[in-house]
Amino acid sequence: MVSLPAGPAGGLVRSLPPESYLADFAGAEFIDWFARCSAAARCRVTRTPLTELRRWRFDADTGNLGHDSGAFFVVEGLQVRTGYGPVREWSQPIINQPEIGILGMLVKEVDGVPYCLVQAKIEPGNHNGIQVSPTVQATRSNYTRIHQGRSTRYLEYFTDPGAGRTLVDVLQSEQGSWFLRKRNRNMVVQVTEDVPAGEDHHWLPLPELRRLLRIDGLVNMDTRTVLACLPADTFPASQPVPAGDAASALVLSTTGRGRALNDTATVLRWFTGAKSRHELSAHRIPLRDLPGWRSTPEQITHEDGRHFSIIGVTAEVGNREVAAWDQPLLYPEGRGVVAFVIKVIEGVAHLLVHARFQPGLLDGMEMGPTVQCVPENYPDGPPRFLDYVLNAPRERVLYNAVLAEEGGRFYHSQNNYLLVEAGDDFPTAVPEDYCWMTAHQLTLLLRHGYYVNVEARSLLACLQSW
Amino acid sequence: MVSLPAGPAGGLVRSLPPESYLADFAGAEFIDWFARCSAAARCRVTRTPLTELRRWRFDADTGNLGHDSGAFFVVEGLQVRTGYGPVREWSQPIINQPEIGILGMLVKEVDGVPYCLVQAKIEPGNHNGIQVSPTVQATRSNYTRIHQGRSTRYLEYFTDPGAGRTLVDVLQSEQGSWFLRKRNRNMVVQVTEDVPAGEDHHWLPLPELRRLLRIDGLVNMDTRTVLACLPADTFPASQPVPAGDAASALVLSTTGRGRALNDTATVLRWFTGAKSRHELSAHRIPLRDLPGWRSTPEQITHEDGRHFSIIGVTAEVGNREVAAWDQPLLYPEGRGVVAFVIKVIEGVAHLLVHARFQPGLLDGMEMGPTVQCVPENYPDGPPRFLDYVLNAPRERVLYNAVLAEEGGRFYHSQNNYLLVEAGDDFPTAVPEDYCWMTAHQLTLLLRHGYYVNVEARSLLACLQSW
Repeated sequence: MVSLPAGPAGGLVRSLPPESYLADFAGAEFIDWFARCSAAARCRVTRTPLTELRRWRFDADTGNLGHDSGAFFVVEGLQVRTGYGPVREWSQPIINQPEIGILGMLVKEVDGVPYCLVQAKIEPGNHNGIQVSPTVQATRSNYTRIHQGRSTRYLEYFTDPGAGRTLVDVLQSEQGSWFLRKRNRNMVVQVTEDVPAGEDHHWLPLPELRRLLRIDGLVNMDTRTVLACLPADTFPASQPVPAGDAASALVLSTTGRGRALNDTATVLRWFTGAKSRHELSAHRIPLRDLPGWRSTPEQITHEDGRHFSIIGVTAEVGNREVAAWDQPLLYPEGRGVVAFVIKVIEGVAHLLVHARFQPGLLDGMEMGPTVQCVPENYPDGPPRFLDYVLNAPRERVLYNAVLAEEGGRFYHSQNNYLLVEAGDDFPTAVPEDYCWMTAHQLTLLLRHGYYVNVEARSLLACLQSW
Repeated sequence: MVSLPAGPAGGLVRSLPPESYLADFAGAEFIDWFARCSAAARCRVTRTPLTELRRWRFDADTGNLGHDSGAFFVVEGLQVRTGYGPVREWSQPIINQPEIGILGMLVKEVDGVPYCLVQAKIEPGNHNGIQVSPTVQATRSNYTRIHQGRSTRYLEYFTDPGAGRTLVDVLQSEQGSWFLRKRNRNMVVQVTEDVPAGEDHHWLPLPELRRLLRIDGLVNMDTRTVLACLPADTFPASQPVPAGDAASALVLSTTGRGRALNDTATVLRWFTGAKSRHELSAHRIPLRDLPGWRSTPEQITHEDGRHFSIIGVTAEVGNREVAAWDQPLLYPEGRGVVAFVIKVIEGVAHLLVHARFQPGLLDGMEMGPTVQCVPENYPDGPPRFLDYVLNAPRERVLYNAVLAEEGGRFYHSQNNYLLVEAGDDFPTAVPEDYCWMTAHQLTLLLRHGYYVNVEARSLLACLQSW
């Protein structure tokens, strides 16, 4: 049985890091703006039984949990069979959200410095209230105003192709273990005209935004995936490296100036081979009577208390205007570990990429980080490379922060993101579902959808956070 | 009601074109080999009611039609809702074949000329018995020998990466109107050692294979898609152009030496926009009681006699050894038209690509030809550009042949493939779901899966048939 803490106690946002710490990374303008937003914000999230969620109901036939309007998303069942990994067959709830949302960042260069129009956004699942979000973050249900709320500010820059120079426009997947074939449109649009920032928005220098990635829980997932999709030659990091031996190797890796161990044709062959090697099938099934899961009026939990629960919340959320609604959220059990092992090969930093099966991914597999797991879900022994990254000596940990996943769908979901430099003991020869790639190779593939999963995209953004 | 002709009358293969005609395109060696294969081949295909197919049965719960072993494929139902196209909602049977097969061509250069190891292959749905196929054409059920037949010859060149130089290795979709998320592994492997051709195989110069694409029904779909995936700089066509004004414009288009109207970033943005513009959903539903379809022991047909039927056949097929089995086949109603309109823009030939929704495609949309339809399915008026390509003056028709689709799953499925040069009257400005691209741009995207649909891939192969 999953034990659940009480929801956040009160109405005050708790996301502002201690100012002394924040000042190491952020300028006074950002700190002021974020403090003002936090002071104005209200975020009261309380647990509500699934059976009592206003405007949500379990379908009489299937037991699937959906909104009265048919919009937003449906919690359904998924039955998985695979020849990949230790567990060959399971069932699970999954979030089916077929519509394509927009994650859009406006960028403007001023005196040679790129600025991003970020938003202070509250989501009911955020453990800390406000996080730094892209300019626009809207599902189609949002921006076609199914919820009859306010129109989405700045949306026109992303829906009207003439409004700016589009630097990024690509569909990318999101959490393939929790979402069924979800994809969002990742966009970066560069403008030249003046675009005033509304009260909830702020023009933030891109280098500063990248540095904020080093603060726990501050920069949200949608910002990270959008930043990761920026082409390598667009606004390269001004200080792209940490101090230390790995510095020049990382520059060569991110810029593409260093030679890759495996050329891109080889990488694509490897990936096709990995997809073809395993039989994978995922069938939608009714949520009712899902094998291995226990349904109560309160929540849906896994019999062994692992993986995640589906819970209900009542949210009262807003900066100045407060909106109130009910919704289900996916509440993961335990904190995940998401890590790339990075090895300098012939002077160039290479990331150890894993061809990872996740049942909700459109084609079953995408390229993921070396490690991506919740350790508690593996009572019989840690997955490959987990011990290596958790036991790495401090000087080999290039990046280490706890970042949150999408708070609009997940409740208090956090992962420990790590970039770990491999020691000389780490072999260059790797198991067949793994492949060494440079950061630049991954960035090139991000021109296309469905190659690099959202966890790996987060880490690629963090690789530019120095 | 669909009226069905009787199955092929007898056991003799009927695919050999008249020798006088064949000799315009093929050399004596090929003609001799193909005649020998045809003489040795047996292909007896007779209609059998679906309820009497040996080893196939309708599932008691769902009515889905599958094989006793669980292998091969299942005929299921699909419910489609879309904001795209004139029909917004429908149900249909669909072939669910989740396993990834291999379409593999061995290539060897001799004295600077690339040779392909083609196979004379009989499929029960071929209207003409034997067609020219890739070296290996095998589903996973085939090559893991679920059917307990002979092992697949030459398979090891495609499953053992060390055996040659891999020029192509990519997963590509197949007919998205008839297959549910089907994809095959398209491979071209170049060898340097001698690989003897077995009796059913023949080393054919690639330029000759390309010319054979001009003969109706001779080169099968699997060969066409594999040829289309060859990178533009690998074995470019020796005579890449037809005579006439379009010649140099086509060279510039296929080689990439000519400037494209829309750069690739623009093309990718256009495609992301098209995918995001339309709401598309496709749900698997039980085949039992599929709305709009009539099920009899004989077959499953559409109420209006349109689209296709699911029929059963008993096949006795073989070159020397004859194998016998029963299976369902999808029998399309009417002959399709598949055409690219090609316009010379600033001296470079551009293909008018259509972002086409097909419910079985993995991401709903791929880039298809300008026209792709069965005219009989549009009683209320022809789809866009159909009249233009059918009424084009003879001198503007650069390519015109009737080619067959996959005979292992489709019964007598044929399309009229056309490449039509646009007149000056044809506007450069096109509707929003269309985009002008060079052949080279499409070929570059074929490094990746799920961009270019199988019908467009066939036409790209035909574009090199001069």
